[in-house]
Amino acid sequence: MSQQTDKPWGGRFSEATDAFVERFTASVTFDQRLYHHDIQGSIAHATMLARVGVLTEDERDAIIQGLNEIHGEIERGEFDWSVSLEDVHMNIEARLTAKIGITGKKLHTGRSRNDQVATDVRLYLRDEIDTLSEELSRLQRGTIELAEREADTIMPGFTHLQTAQPVTFGHHLLAWNEMLQRDYERLQDCRKRVNIMPLGAAALAGTTYPIDRAYTAELLGFDRPSTNSLDSVSDRDFAIEFCSLASLILMHMSRMSEELVLWTSAQFDFIHLPDRFCTGSSIMPQKKNPDVPELVRGKSGRVYGHLISLLTLMKSQPLAYNKDNQEDKEPLFDTIDTLKGCLKAFADMIPAIEPKREQMFEAARRGFSTATDLADYLVRSGVPFRDAHEVVGKAVGFGVEQGRDLSEMTLAELQQFSDVIAADVFDVLTLEGSVAARDHIGGTAPAQVRAAAQTAKALIAAR
Amino acid sequence: MSQQTDKPWGGRFSEATDAFVERFTASVTFDQRLYHHDIQGSIAHATMLARVGVLTEDERDAIIQGLNEIHGEIERGEFDWSVSLEDVHMNIEARLTAKIGITGKKLHTGRSRNDQVATDVRLYLRDEIDTLSEELSRLQRGTIELAEREADTIMPGFTHLQTAQPVTFGHHLLAWNEMLQRDYERLQDCRKRVNIMPLGAAALAGTTYPIDRAYTAELLGFDRPSTNSLDSVSDRDFAIEFCSLASLILMHMSRMSEELVLWTSAQFDFIHLPDRFCTGSSIMPQKKNPDVPELVRGKSGRVYGHLISLLTLMKSQPLAYNKDNQEDKEPLFDTIDTLKGCLKAFADMIPAIEPKREQMFEAARRGFSTATDLADYLVRSGVPFRDAHEVVGKAVGFGVEQGRDLSEMTLAELQQFSDVIAADVFDVLTLEGSVAARDHIGGTAPAQVRAAAQTAKALIAAR
Amino acid sequence: MSQQTDKPWGGRFSEATDAFVERFTASVTFDQRLYHHDIQGSIAHATMLARVGVLTEDERDAIIQGLNEIHGEIERGEFDWSVSLEDVHMNIEARLTAKIGITGKKLHTGRSRNDQVATDVRLYLRDEIDTLSEELSRLQRGTIELAEREADTIMPGFTHLQTAQPVTFGHHLLAWNEMLQRDYERLQDCRKRVNIMPLGAAALAGTTYPIDRAYTAELLGFDRPSTNSLDSVSDRDFAIEFCSLASLILMHMSRMSEELVLWTSAQFDFIHLPDRFCTGSSIMPQKKNPDVPELVRGKSGRVYGHLISLLTLMKSQPLAYNKDNQEDKEPLFDTIDTLKGCLKAFADMIPAIEPKREQMFEAARRGFSTATDLADYLVRSGVPFRDAHEVVGKAVGFGVEQGRDLSEMTLAELQQFSDVIAADVFDVLTLEGSVAARDHIGGTAPAQVRAAAQTAKALIAAR
Amino acid sequence: MSQQTDKPWGGRFSEATDAFVERFTASVTFDQRLYHHDIQGSIAHATMLARVGVLTEDERDAIIQGLNEIHGEIERGEFDWSVSLEDVHMNIEARLTAKIGITGKKLHTGRSRNDQVATDVRLYLRDEIDTLSEELSRLQRGTIELAEREADTIMPGFTHLQTAQPVTFGHHLLAWNEMLQRDYERLQDCRKRVNIMPLGAAALAGTTYPIDRAYTAELLGFDRPSTNSLDSVSDRDFAIEFCSLASLILMHMSRMSEELVLWTSAQFDFIHLPDRFCTGSSIMPQKKNPDVPELVRGKSGRVYGHLISLLTLMKSQPLAYNKDNQEDKEPLFDTIDTLKGCLKAFADMIPAIEPKREQMFEAARRGFSTATDLADYLVRSGVPFRDAHEVVGKAVGFGVEQGRDLSEMTLAELQQFSDVIAADVFDVLTLEGSVAARDHIGGTAPAQVRAAAQTAKALIAAR
Repeated sequence: MSQQTDKPWGGRFSEATDAFVERFTASVTFDQRLYHHDIQGSIAHATMLARVGVLTEDERDAIIQGLNEIHGEIERGEFDWSVSLEDVHMNIEARLTAKIGITGKKLHTGRSRNDQVATDVRLYLRDEIDTLSEELSRLQRGTIELAEREADTIMPGFTHLQTAQPVTFGHHLLAWNEMLQRDYERLQDCRKRVNIMPLGAAALAGTTYPIDRAYTAELLGFDRPSTNSLDSVSDRDFAIEFCSLASLILMHMSRMSEELVLWTSAQFDFIHLPDRFCTGSSIMPQKKNPDVPELVRGKSGRVYGHLISLLTLMKSQPLAYNKDNQEDKEPLFDTIDTLKGCLKAFADMIPAIEPKREQMFEAARRGFSTATDLADYLVRSGVPFRDAHEVVGKAVGFGVEQGRDLSEMTLAELQQFSDVIAADVFDVLTLEGSVAARDHIGGTAPAQVRAAAQTAKALIAAR
Repeated sequence: MSQQTDKPWGGRFSEATDAFVERFTASVTFDQRLYHHDIQGSIAHATMLARVGVLTEDERDAIIQGLNEIHGEIERGEFDWSVSLEDVHMNIEARLTAKIGITGKKLHTGRSRNDQVATDVRLYLRDEIDTLSEELSRLQRGTIELAEREADTIMPGFTHLQTAQPVTFGHHLLAWNEMLQRDYERLQDCRKRVNIMPLGAAALAGTTYPIDRAYTAELLGFDRPSTNSLDSVSDRDFAIEFCSLASLILMHMSRMSEELVLWTSAQFDFIHLPDRFCTGSSIMPQKKNPDVPELVRGKSGRVYGHLISLLTLMKSQPLAYNKDNQEDKEPLFDTIDTLKGCLKAFADMIPAIEPKREQMFEAARRGFSTATDLADYLVRSGVPFRDAHEVVGKAVGFGVEQGRDLSEMTLAELQQFSDVIAADVFDVLTLEGSVAARDHIGGTAPAQVRAAAQTAKALIAAR
Repeated sequence: MSQQTDKPWGGRFSEATDAFVERFTASVTFDQRLYHHDIQGSIAHATMLARVGVLTEDERDAIIQGLNEIHGEIERGEFDWSVSLEDVHMNIEARLTAKIGITGKKLHTGRSRNDQVATDVRLYLRDEIDTLSEELSRLQRGTIELAEREADTIMPGFTHLQTAQPVTFGHHLLAWNEMLQRDYERLQDCRKRVNIMPLGAAALAGTTYPIDRAYTAELLGFDRPSTNSLDSVSDRDFAIEFCSLASLILMHMSRMSEELVLWTSAQFDFIHLPDRFCTGSSIMPQKKNPDVPELVRGKSGRVYGHLISLLTLMKSQPLAYNKDNQEDKEPLFDTIDTLKGCLKAFADMIPAIEPKREQMFEAARRGFSTATDLADYLVRSGVPFRDAHEVVGKAVGFGVEQGRDLSEMTLAELQQFSDVIAADVFDVLTLEGSVAARDHIGGTAPAQVRAAAQTAKALIAAR
Repeated sequence: MSQQTDKPWGGRFSEATDAFVERFTASVTFDQRLYHHDIQGSIAHATMLARVGVLTEDERDAIIQGLNEIHGEIERGEFDWSVSLEDVHMNIEARLTAKIGITGKKLHTGRSRNDQVATDVRLYLRDEIDTLSEELSRLQRGTIELAEREADTIMPGFTHLQTAQPVTFGHHLLAWNEMLQRDYERLQDCRKRVNIMPLGAAALAGTTYPIDRAYTAELLGFDRPSTNSLDSVSDRDFAIEFCSLASLILMHMSRMSEELVLWTSAQFDFIHLPDRFCTGSSIMPQKKNPDVPELVRGKSGRVYGHLISLLTLMKSQPLAYNKDNQEDKEPLFDTIDTLKGCLKAFADMIPAIEPKREQMFEAARRGFSTATDLADYLVRSGVPFRDAHEVVGKAVGFGVEQGRDLSEMTLAELQQFSDVIAADVFDVLTLEGSVAARDHIGGTAPAQVRAAAQTAKALIAAR
């Protein structure tokens, strides 16, 4: 049993906390990672309290110096975290009082742990969003550069994993970039809602001290103080919104991963991933496994799970703060860590992809990928689209039987399906002709791919 | 077995679709609700095709007239939907060809069902977001107006569902409005990403026809055409983002609901809900149940579920379109319907809440809700906050034993815990004094509540 | 506004239900599918009430006859469902009273809608579990029969989607059967917990009538009456457990689907799916898409979502019944429908798979799939496993460089990596030798596959 | 960069693993908790290998002694875990080879990490299920004993959180026990499916060594070896099934928690929770918060999230093992830890609940909780139930207006609603009479509660 007097709230209690309950309810094992932002917030709070006259300048200075020393102790691994002090806040405050005496106890004036922790998490997440934004930009740049290099590389475009139409590999890579571009925008939209300061809400109703919340917000780089104290201590939207956009990012990365895994299989054999991104098998000596994309694909589950955790956590909670909310941190922290690791791994790996251009081309050449081009050819000769579709369907059926692609049939063979077909049909049945013909915004023509890459790079450069 | 020639793709097939498979894979039973936006998109597409010379003006006019007639037939319930025609698109197109002949078959030139359905859903969702935004605004207005009326009504503020500090009912209601305000902002952020036009991506690679995507986008009120054709037909982010913000809204409403259910219980008895929003029991004649908030609370699960459905759906899908994506519609549609119903129910009900002011006040009077005020009083007399906290903790312990609130003790009794307590202490121990003292941005003082309500209303008025 | 007197609980209300609220809170649009089991339950209830003397025999007979007539009306589509009567129970009871007069009002004696609906849903789910069990058995049988036919067919076994070791196609199919076998067992375990009768719990506390619950349970085929009335009306575990096992089934089917989609791709080309299970493209005439497995794969999201809906629904609900619980039905019903459709589609389709045996064999022949066999060969000659692994790794590296499989190297070439290699090494490098050598329980040797298929069929036959 | 030769699969690689990739893909930081079961499995494997002649007896003994020493090193914290050795398996094997030389390399004969890890996790989970089963039994016993003590304590039974009918507190507690009883049964059903041995599946196809799987299974206490090698290395059903039943348990505990939080509120004030299970506020000196139930309620989200993680992880994975599966461990481990902590906290706390019997009784006395009894009284006098319901509804309406309960009206007043009411009506309007009258299986009558408690205890005693 810990001593009841350890606690910041011991006065009203006749019995010490049960030792297991103490561990079970403590958060310091995981919230200690907030130490930097906790101290940052406390320094701003002390600075504001001094400005409005609640602390003297000497008190403020003693507090700030003490906090800075503690920051150093933590960074150097010299700080002794105590579970009986529950959380990062009380650990730091207890240490501060040990260092500077009674003045340390004045720091908590006009605030509560409820608004303090909400502030810490927002400061922390804001910094992490900025780091993630940079890593996402790096991944996008690597993707776009590869796309530019492969603007002319022809591969099969798939729908239903069936060969559909030829596209360029660069075009495919830019599809990935579009996903990431939306992810970046959502991250910035989320940041707007993160960057609001709850400090000053105190326990739930505000405080009787003459605090200057706008000043504290300015010191901490927040856009503004929050508008309602009850909401300030109970709101976890920002964490949920972050996890929902992280889920979208991981979903996108799971799709990229799926394709990388397919492309490195013996059956597709479209790309080579350098050995440094792969691992082997303890039993099968020939194996080289695409571990990084597989693992990233799997980590989508992890982040989806955290999103559901937080949504469940907040379901049906009455206002204002409830202890349940302590459970907001681990899912959020792990989401950040997961996202950071996955983005780094991909930002390193994607530019190192080595496409096997001949394999891609050969795969596109098979599979009647220019059937739509033939249908379009017929339409240009006056056949209604739906009828042209049927004509080509029959020609393909013939090709399947004969084991030959459309471009491998004779003119006479093709003409048995429609008499509007002439010798110029073979121009539209080449892969190069097919991709070049899709020459409009968003189309797969190499010229469009190059232009799109330029635009995409400019968007990133302007961040 | 249906005739294989029914199908727009029958040419290459040697066997008709299995009758069960036909029903199992058809979407027309649920995607027919897109008819209006499908026709809207087709009219714009035909208009564009005529402008670039793919259709003649006569063909365009015939198509548009035919589509308008079909629109009327559907609205009047005279349209015969066919499962063997698979989806809303083919049903409408087959009817068009039946009406206007061979020209109807030309409408599908330069597009595919892949980009068509993506366009339809975005048009539809955009309209629904606008409707939802209006309903959300109405709910916010009703909440704020009630908050203004109750700016002086004192109730207990809770943390951990324990009486914490007195707040005003108006302040509590404005906390609800803050949640809804963020929801509104997220809805508008989502709308930006919905309002991008996929049409022109065709099956996945773009088209060989000289289409003018910017023109079609303008006709349909889209901000711009999409940037990459592969991404255009495979992207379902906008639906997932919508469901994630809908989950946040329902989460918020589940919290409001939980409070409404608590407040209508005999134990809290804080509010009266008019009979028209309640139902009774088939067996217990005395019951009047808060069905609407209970049901809304339950519906949070429904929307969370749809979010997970869509995230799961898209996990690991290789590009571009896969049949899996047909499963995007029902979760999205039901999310929209659920959200619309819940918002309407609350927008109708919230303004009709009748607070029981005396019950609220009495509840706040009990429970030592001004203990923090006493601590702050001690701090102002020079006692460090942490020590003041402990002094008050002991006074409360005494009160619990004696069955008396702090304001019910004598001065002498209070002074036995701290000798800095003087007669003026009773000023801070009243509920009115307590709330009035929290007079800063976000605080619960009635003046702040009124100001906050004004600001909130101005934000809505400016939409 | 509906008349308040319509309602079974109108007496205490001073105001009619709001028309929108009436629709919003009504369940009859979706719970009417319970009509058969509602009537079945009511007949048993009336029979029991007569036995204990609460009803006369004439009253019982009139009720039963009336209910049977109503059953016929519903089956014939002649029943007029009314939203203002809220749910299936009140619709049927109102009709009964209209038919047989005041006696109809006596049916509800000693029960409440709370226990009635819980009983209906259990009866309904029990029947559906039995139907699903049969369909699952059919799918298993089809899978096993195909496995027997393909017990000797060699294909590459994959890990990380890289060629790992040769396996037989029959062995692979039996892996599917193992998943389904566990699913079947979980379904039966769930059925045990479904088949408990809540009827008699009344609203929440039991009833003052001398009911005989054991008798009613016997009439309805329940294993026993439930043990606690509060729990009986609030428990939705059985629905959640069902949705969790349905999620596992759909997860398994998503894995089978993924493989079917891969195998029908041009790159793998391992199997042919008959045209009747595929559909085509409205724009690309050559396409034949594996719609059924794609759609089933997508439907996993749907069922996962319903599981989360129900878990969220029940989170934090105080006892006993709350209106939230009305939201249990749609997710459960849609899970049942989805599962039934997917199982039927697969039970029809799997036996029709046509393997392309040469393609499978050829794929296994490439990719150094017998590298492990070479390592095992070395171990048998005294090389420690880890060292053997490294030797083979180097031989494979050489093969990759030279573009030759291990079996295509000369003895001299192989011996440069280890001098224990002798001429008999080529015996273990054949695919047939490799699979035959894995001849233990669970191994891929054709003899083991045939034996495993026999065992699996016997398990199903014994159901 | 780590040396490529560190790896068990280095032979085929021309480049060392990227240092970040090495950390990113390593699992040893979290799978080291499997060390005990990994060693247990290895000892059994070595024992079997010796029996079938693959190892000599001396080799076996050296391996077992080495493994036992390593076990000691790990337990004493002297083991040096290395990230470059990837996982718990390779860390232990590398250490074994360092200790006993070349023989250590022979341990991996006839197995792969794929079947090894699947075996470890099953052994580990089996032990944890047994521990959890005991803790669950302890919680059930505590709940039932409290129920027996409170078999006569009357409290309001709620539906829709409105006073419905009087129940006994013991009856309410036994409803909790019913939930836990089902949870226990599901845990045992899951254990059956956990206790199957994958070892011998090797990488995916079985092995060429003459292994004796039945013997290994017997040594490890497994019910039997698994049936199909591909399935054995890819199956994670057991983990998902465990997380789904853990979700049900946490869902139940969230409901119990919700009620505990309500009951400790000033508004309900039904129970007292000892101080040792509560904590206070850093700012509000009067607060005593029910932290334990709040935290447990919040932890439901955590476990739901892990369930979704695992379901997502396995969605659409082709056979057999993929790296994604490494992500199965953390969700499973954290689910176990969470469940264990919550069960312990509740098993300690529930028996310490102190009911406030007068408060409960008083709450039941208000709120017309015997209205149903009055209706039943009327039915016994020949009034059809639905008409009786309406009569009582009107009497209640009168009572609400007058501020008096039914039992507080005069006979004349009651008779104005129905002339069959006589003086004996007051017998059924008492709380004691009301509960005693519900005297059937599952009913709330104290005699039934006592009998049910006996039955429930017998079920646990028989485990």
